Amino acid sequence: MSYRFADRMSNIPESFIEALFRVSGDPETISFAGGLPDTNLIDAAGIAAAAREVLEEEGAAALQYSTTDGYRPLREYIAARYRKRLGIPATAGEIQIVNGSQQCLDLVAKIFCNPGDHIGMERPGYLGAIEAFSLYEPVVHGVDLCDNGPDLAMFARIAEEHPLKFFYGIPNSQNPSGRTYAEETRRSIARMLEGTETVFYEDDAFGELFFDGRPRPPVKKYLPDMGILSGSFSKIVAPGMRIGWLLAPEPVLQQFNVAKQAADLHSNYLCQVVMHRYLSGFDLDAHVRRVAAIYGERCRVMCDLLDDRFTAGVTHTTPEGGMFLMAFLPEQISAMRVFEEGVRRKVAVLPGVPFYVNGGGDHCIRLNFSRSKEEEIMEGMERLAGVIRALS
Amino acid sequence: MSYRFADRMSNIPESFIEALFRVSGDPETISFAGGLPDTNLIDAAGIAAAAREVLEEEGAAALQYSTTDGYRPLREYIAARYRKRLGIPATAGEIQIVNGSQQCLDLVAKIFCNPGDHIGMERPGYLGAIEAFSLYEPVVHGVDLCDNGPDLAMFARIAEEHPLKFFYGIPNSQNPSGRTYAEETRRSIARMLEGTETVFYEDDAFGELFFDGRPRPPVKKYLPDMGILSGSFSKIVAPGMRIGWLLAPEPVLQQFNVAKQAADLHSNYLCQVVMHRYLSGFDLDAHVRRVAAIYGERCRVMCDLLDDRFTAGVTHTTPEGGMFLMAFLPEQISAMRVFEEGVRRKVAVLPGVPFYVNGGGDHCIRLNFSRSKEEEIMEGMERLAGVIRALS
Repeated sequence: MSYRFADRMSNIPESFIEALFRVSGDPETISFAGGLPDTNLIDAAGIAAAAREVLEEEGAAALQYSTTDGYRPLREYIAARYRKRLGIPATAGEIQIVNGSQQCLDLVAKIFCNPGDHIGMERPGYLGAIEAFSLYEPVVHGVDLCDNGPDLAMFARIAEEHPLKFFYGIPNSQNPSGRTYAEETRRSIARMLEGTETVFYEDDAFGELFFDGRPRPPVKKYLPDMGILSGSFSKIVAPGMRIGWLLAPEPVLQQFNVAKQAADLHSNYLCQVVMHRYLSGFDLDAHVRRVAAIYGERCRVMCDLLDDRFTAGVTHTTPEGGMFLMAFLPEQISAMRVFEEGVRRKVAVLPGVPFYVNGGGDHCIRLNFSRSKEEEIMEGMERLAGVIRALS
Repeated sequence: MSYRFADRMSNIPESFIEALFRVSGDPETISFAGGLPDTNLIDAAGIAAAAREVLEEEGAAALQYSTTDGYRPLREYIAARYRKRLGIPATAGEIQIVNGSQQCLDLVAKIFCNPGDHIGMERPGYLGAIEAFSLYEPVVHGVDLCDNGPDLAMFARIAEEHPLKFFYGIPNSQNPSGRTYAEETRRSIARMLEGTETVFYEDDAFGELFFDGRPRPPVKKYLPDMGILSGSFSKIVAPGMRIGWLLAPEPVLQQFNVAKQAADLHSNYLCQVVMHRYLSGFDLDAHVRRVAAIYGERCRVMCDLLDDRFTAGVTHTTPEGGMFLMAFLPEQISAMRVFEEGVRRKVAVLPGVPFYVNGGGDHCIRLNFSRSKEEEIMEGMERLAGVIRALS
């Protein structure tokens, strides 16, 4: 027999994510390669109590089919949090619940992209976005991500040459680089896109996890009509419940809702109701502050070790939040070799190449600091310093 | 501002599903229009106990990210059930967990269909499939669904004229018609497709709900290499947990897994673990027998009323299982008018038109019998008989 798959399936870059799950599975390997929040910071007891209450009080109603847009009280909670935390005038009607913000990547590309349409994204950029977008066969333009955000001149030049359907970025503690856009960059992007037909698609998976606890204004604040903003409970409550959302203007949300309904009718209803119940009796601000402080300390340890214990020529980003940083290696060291030698020496890192659309990334690695305790970070970074010395 | 959506978004037929949820929301309306299992037959207490055990014993591990393919013990349960119940040699490695079998519709079309590719499906066919497929812009050929299954001559003619990527059908108690393929039709389809490059995509949402409790052999049994089979816990355990699956040969499952990962990384992990825990200590066979017996009685009441209380010229299918039947009206009565007049007289039905790709369905309606108790069925069918008399 032979199967005739769609052309789009040959477009997808080879995935590292499953390979990483396998590497992460070896108990002797210290992994900085994954993207997991610390399991110990998930409040299983609180979520269990919420689940118990919901199933006792609402019974089978919480297990029935529901509407595509999502559980309204949860959407109201999310909208209220946007108003309070970021000062943007969000309403429940502008929010669609999805299966983690990854699903936004799929559905946004689905509603906007014809094959051959142009889109822009950061370079380096989020791997899951590259995979999701590539299945809709757009032409993807990478815009270099610098310390203050995307290279604005490069962005403007690309946007002038090609009508971009959207630009996708992670302004807060970006995955993979850990970089955060400066506020002035956010305003400049909004000014650049104001009055154009290019949507700014802002993925805010990490905006609650700034180590200093200070929220940064989303680009959407300056570009309300052409800004869409995705969020997620994965990094701040529990990823296994798969609850994220999109905040978007009504005409976009309407198309997005049609695509969501065709994709899977609606997201897990039980977990939506449980999530809402959990959050209703919970000080999410205090929880987030605690998680961010712990990640901040782990990040500081990792940065200090990169400064003190590594070969000259190794540099790194200095995140203000989130779960990742990026380290840059001297020209003669291949990140792929670091990955391979790392697997042998029981330390897993992620080479930069898959994050770079249009090429690049041969000499950088992504390091996750959220999952490992400080002692593990110290031991793992020793091993990694050894890997890099061996390859120098 | 203006938004430039992808061309595919103008392809989607107008959705009735959300409209139906609204109609179903009026407490005075008796609705035969929806597609919900009876909430009273969902074992909320059993699922609550399983959730409590899982969160007590596994804690935060059940709330973390997981692998794309799905929780292995659950896939093993599903495979074992296929071996035992249907005698097909399924293994956990051939099963991918998804968000209800609706997600299979999206991802199967995604991995197989280039725009303009030909696919086949039953006419009338499942509305959610028409919506999901249409976003990938295939040419959809409807094959008339008769009492014994698809019109084989028509199927053969279409398959000869066009290389079909797949044919999508619901052999067991089809939605919307309630029809079940005869075993000989299943064998004939397998013979017809054997050695071709056309996949038979079999949606088995209702196969556990035969009123006589006797399983019917899937087409995949006779066409192992080119058969893919989707299933779901929505109709037999709880739809709000959104857990379905695809059983497919390895080369198909590999592409499907890539598409699933890009779509949303993985399905709700907590509910997968809870579902497995629930089923492990539960006599699903006995539960399914009980649900099927209740639905069977409701179906019989509805069929008897159609025979006894309706205008001459109204006919109907006689389901062997599932949740739906179809009634056919005399030529002079428009199903759209029945829908509209029904809303006024507080009885909701679904007109046939949206189920018919390539036109048709103007004089039939779909009736759901799973959700309403017998007294409601009697009252609602009285109202419906009145609607039809008024329009005769």
